[in-house]
Amino acid sequence: MLTLPQLKQQVLEANLDLPRHNLVTFTWGNVSAVDRERGLVVIKPSGVEYEHMAAEDMVVVDLASGRTFEGTKKPSSDTATHLALYREFADIGGIVHTHSRHATIWAQAGLDIPAWGTTHADYFYGAIPCTRLMTEQEIEHDYELETGKVIIDTFRRRGISPNAIPAVLVNAHGPFAWGKDPHNAVHNAVVLEEIAYMGIFSRQLTPGIGSMQQELLDKHYLRKHGKNAYYGQ
Amino acid sequence: MLTLPQLKQQVLEANLDLPRHNLVTFTWGNVSAVDRERGLVVIKPSGVEYEHMAAEDMVVVDLASGRTFEGTKKPSSDTATHLALYREFADIGGIVHTHSRHATIWAQAGLDIPAWGTTHADYFYGAIPCTRLMTEQEIEHDYELETGKVIIDTFRRRGISPNAIPAVLVNAHGPFAWGKDPHNAVHNAVVLEEIAYMGIFSRQLTPGIGSMQQELLDKHYLRKHGKNAYYGQ
Amino acid sequence: MLTLPQLKQQVLEANLDLPRHNLVTFTWGNVSAVDRERGLVVIKPSGVEYEHMAAEDMVVVDLASGRTFEGTKKPSSDTATHLALYREFADIGGIVHTHSRHATIWAQAGLDIPAWGTTHADYFYGAIPCTRLMTEQEIEHDYELETGKVIIDTFRRRGISPNAIPAVLVNAHGPFAWGKDPHNAVHNAVVLEEIAYMGIFSRQLTPGIGSMQQELLDKHYLRKHGKNAYYGQ
Amino acid sequence: MLTLPQLKQQVLEANLDLPRHNLVTFTWGNVSAVDRERGLVVIKPSGVEYEHMAAEDMVVVDLASGRTFEGTKKPSSDTATHLALYREFADIGGIVHTHSRHATIWAQAGLDIPAWGTTHADYFYGAIPCTRLMTEQEIEHDYELETGKVIIDTFRRRGISPNAIPAVLVNAHGPFAWGKDPHNAVHNAVVLEEIAYMGIFSRQLTPGIGSMQQELLDKHYLRKHGKNAYYGQ
Repeated sequence: MLTLPQLKQQVLEANLDLPRHNLVTFTWGNVSAVDRERGLVVIKPSGVEYEHMAAEDMVVVDLASGRTFEGTKKPSSDTATHLALYREFADIGGIVHTHSRHATIWAQAGLDIPAWGTTHADYFYGAIPCTRLMTEQEIEHDYELETGKVIIDTFRRRGISPNAIPAVLVNAHGPFAWGKDPHNAVHNAVVLEEIAYMGIFSRQLTPGIGSMQQELLDKHYLRKHGKNAYYGQ
Repeated sequence: MLTLPQLKQQVLEANLDLPRHNLVTFTWGNVSAVDRERGLVVIKPSGVEYEHMAAEDMVVVDLASGRTFEGTKKPSSDTATHLALYREFADIGGIVHTHSRHATIWAQAGLDIPAWGTTHADYFYGAIPCTRLMTEQEIEHDYELETGKVIIDTFRRRGISPNAIPAVLVNAHGPFAWGKDPHNAVHNAVVLEEIAYMGIFSRQLTPGIGSMQQELLDKHYLRKHGKNAYYGQ
Repeated sequence: MLTLPQLKQQVLEANLDLPRHNLVTFTWGNVSAVDRERGLVVIKPSGVEYEHMAAEDMVVVDLASGRTFEGTKKPSSDTATHLALYREFADIGGIVHTHSRHATIWAQAGLDIPAWGTTHADYFYGAIPCTRLMTEQEIEHDYELETGKVIIDTFRRRGISPNAIPAVLVNAHGPFAWGKDPHNAVHNAVVLEEIAYMGIFSRQLTPGIGSMQQELLDKHYLRKHGKNAYYGQ
Repeated sequence: MLTLPQLKQQVLEANLDLPRHNLVTFTWGNVSAVDRERGLVVIKPSGVEYEHMAAEDMVVVDLASGRTFEGTKKPSSDTATHLALYREFADIGGIVHTHSRHATIWAQAGLDIPAWGTTHADYFYGAIPCTRLMTEQEIEHDYELETGKVIIDTFRRRGISPNAIPAVLVNAHGPFAWGKDPHNAVHNAVVLEEIAYMGIFSRQLTPGIGSMQQELLDKHYLRKHGKNAYYGQ
C-alpha cells in the first residue's frame, strides 16, 4: 500500500500527464486517487497552474465527509463529483476529469459515443454513455455532488458496469474517466479522446452507421480484459 | 499602477503569447493595454515579426486622439478599433485581435457561437456575438474606427455587457477579445478559440442543437465570476 | 542479405518511426520484416512501450508455423495476421499495422478510400480497399489468422495486386500497410494516413465525387513505379 | 542582383521552410527562383530528402529550353510546370508547389476557394481558381508542361492577374503559389493553406455562403497592396 506522500506524488504525476497528452487547456482538468484503507482521497488543488504544482500542493480530503484532511489549498471545485463516484464505484482507484476537445464535443452534442471499432473495443465494452440533462434543482443545490449522482444514475438505470465502461460524458459539460489508479484513469481518458475524435468523422462518412458487431466487440475487449486475456507480456 | 516601460513589457509578453498559444500565423495579431490614468494605449507595431519584437518597439498612442505619444514605429493598423473599444468599454484593460483559425471560421460564416457547454459558460455569459456586415460607407470611410463602432453597436443593440461577454466576432474578419489586462485578454482569446473549435463539431453531430440550459450557464459562469465565486484559490 | 541482428535493428527503427510520424498512441502499432531465405519473421513484442524497446526485444518467429524462434518476449498479438500476409503476398518484405486516426476513421465507416488525387496516385494504383465484415466464426476461431485471410480474400476477389495497392483497411478495425522492407511499409502507412485525412474533407466539399481520371492515375503512378519511372534521382 | 550561389542558397532556404510550416510530407514539395537577367531557373532536385539537402544540390536549368545548366542532380519532376509559369507570368520571381493538406483537399474536390474573409483578402484579390480537368492528350503528352499551360489558360480565360491572385489549385492534384521571390512564394503558400483550412469549415457552418462583400475585399487587399497601402512599417 502506498503512503500518503507516495499517493500525492502519483496524483501529481497523473495531473502533469494531462497537458503532456494534450487533454487540457490552462487548468481545466483534475486527477484524484483514493486510499480506501484510510478512507481518504488525494486531489489536485483548484485553479492552480500545472507548471507550478508540487506534490505537497495536492489536497487530501475525507472520502465520507469531503472535509480537508491535509493540505493548505482548496481542493478542486469538482471534488464532490469525485467523492460520489469513489463511494459508488467500489473497484476504481483513480478518476480524471477534463474538457478534452473531442470527448467534450460529444458531451456538448448530448450523445453517447457508440462502439465503432476495435480501438474502442480494446478498452470500453460498449458505448460511452452521455448523462441526461440535470434538473434545475440538481444544478442549484449541491451541483458538483449532483453531477456525481447523475453519472451513477446513468450507469445504474442503463445497467452499465463502471469496470467495463470506465468513462462517461456529462451532458453539456465534458468527460470523466477512471481506472484502477490515477495513471490508468488518464490512460483511459487518452483513449476516450482518441475514439471521440475518430467517431466524429466515421459518423460523417457513414451517417446512421450502426454499432460494431457484438462478436468483434467481445473478441477485442476480452483479449485484453478478464481471465482469458492474451494481449501484452 | 504600472509605469509606461512596465506596461510596454506586459504588452510585449502578451503579444509573444499569441504564437505560443497557436493563435497567429506570421504577424496576424496584436495586443494592446490601456493606461486610463494617463489616457494612453500601448500597442504592437504594425507588421513586425514576433521573433524580432522588443518592449521598446511597442507604440504608445493617445487614447482620445490616436496620435503617437511615444515610439518610432507605426502602431498596428487596427489601432483605431482598439481605441474605440477602450473608450466605450470602461472596465477593460487589454484587447487582443487575431485571425485564430476556428473563431475566424465562425466569423467568416457570419454566425454567433452559442453557449453549448460549461467550457463556454466558465468564461462567457451567453453567445459570442457576430457583428452585422459593415456598410460600404463604413468600409470606405475610416474603416478601422468603424469596425470598433460596429462592435460597440452590436453590444448595445443586443444588450450585451462587454464584461460578461469579453469577445466578439467581426463578420467576415475575425475575433477580438478583451479582459482586465493584456494577459487576461489573451486568456479569453484562447478560450474563445477552444469553444469555437468544439462548437463546429458539436453542431455537426447534432444539427439544430439549442443553447445549453440557462441554469447551467448561470451556475458555471457565477461559480467563477461575481461575489459568490468559489473556483480557484 | 541482412543478418538477424541487422533485421531486428531495422524492425526496431521502423517501429520507432511510428510515434515520430504520429501514427500511434501508446503501443497501438507494430511493424515486422520477413527473411524469406531463412523463413523467419521479426516482429515487435506485444504491448511494450516504444520508449523502452531495444533491438533484442524484437521477437523472431517461424514464417510457416508461427512458433517463436528467438526472443524472450511474446510477439505482437497481431503476428498471425502478418504471417498470413507474408505467405500470400510473395514480394513484400515489411508490414505495419496501426490505428492511425484517419485511416481508422475510414475503416470504422466500412468504406474504401477512392483515388481522388495525385498524392494517392503517386503511391497507390487505385482505391484502398476496405475488407468485408468478418463472420462470427472467423472472429471466434483463430481471429488474427482469419483477419489475414479476409485481407487476402479481399485482394483476390477484387483482383487487386498487393504490389500496386500496398495497404488495406480492415473493417471496423484499422489499416495494414506493407512494402519492400519495414521502412517502406511505414512510408506507405504515412501516405495512407495523409490521403485518408484529405479524402474525408474532399468528400465533404463535393459529396458523390467520382474517382480521379484513370489517365491521371496512370500517369502519376507510372512516373514513380515500373520500368518507365522518371521521379527521383 | 543575386549571384547564382546566393540564389541557390535562397532556394534552399525556401525549400527548408516547407517542412517548418508543415506544408510537406516527405519530399512532396519544391521551390524555385528565376534569374530573369541570365535566363536561368534554380530548383530543388527531384526526390531528395529535406534534411540532406545543401545549396549545391539545387539544380540550375535554362528558362527557355529547360536543359540543365549547372548541377549534378536531376531537377524536380515538376520543373516544366515552373518554367511555363515563369515564361508567362512576367512579374514573378519564385514558385512553390506542395501537396499541403487543405489546399489539396479543395484541389481534389475540384473547387475554387472563394474569398470569405479578410485573411483571404489581405493576400488574394478574389477566389483562388481551380483548373479544369486535363485532357487525356495533355496528360499523356508532356504532362508537366501541359500542367503549366492549363494553369495559364485558367488565368487567361477567367481574366485573372497572377499578381493579384498568386496561387492556383491544380485539379485533382494540389496547389502552386508564387511571389516576387521564393520566400514570398512560400509565404503565400502558407496563407493559402490557412484559408483553405478555414474555408472548409466556414462552408460547413453556412452552406451556400456567398463571397465576402466586394468593398471589404477591396479595402483589405488595397491596404496591403498597391500605391495606397498603409499596412506594415
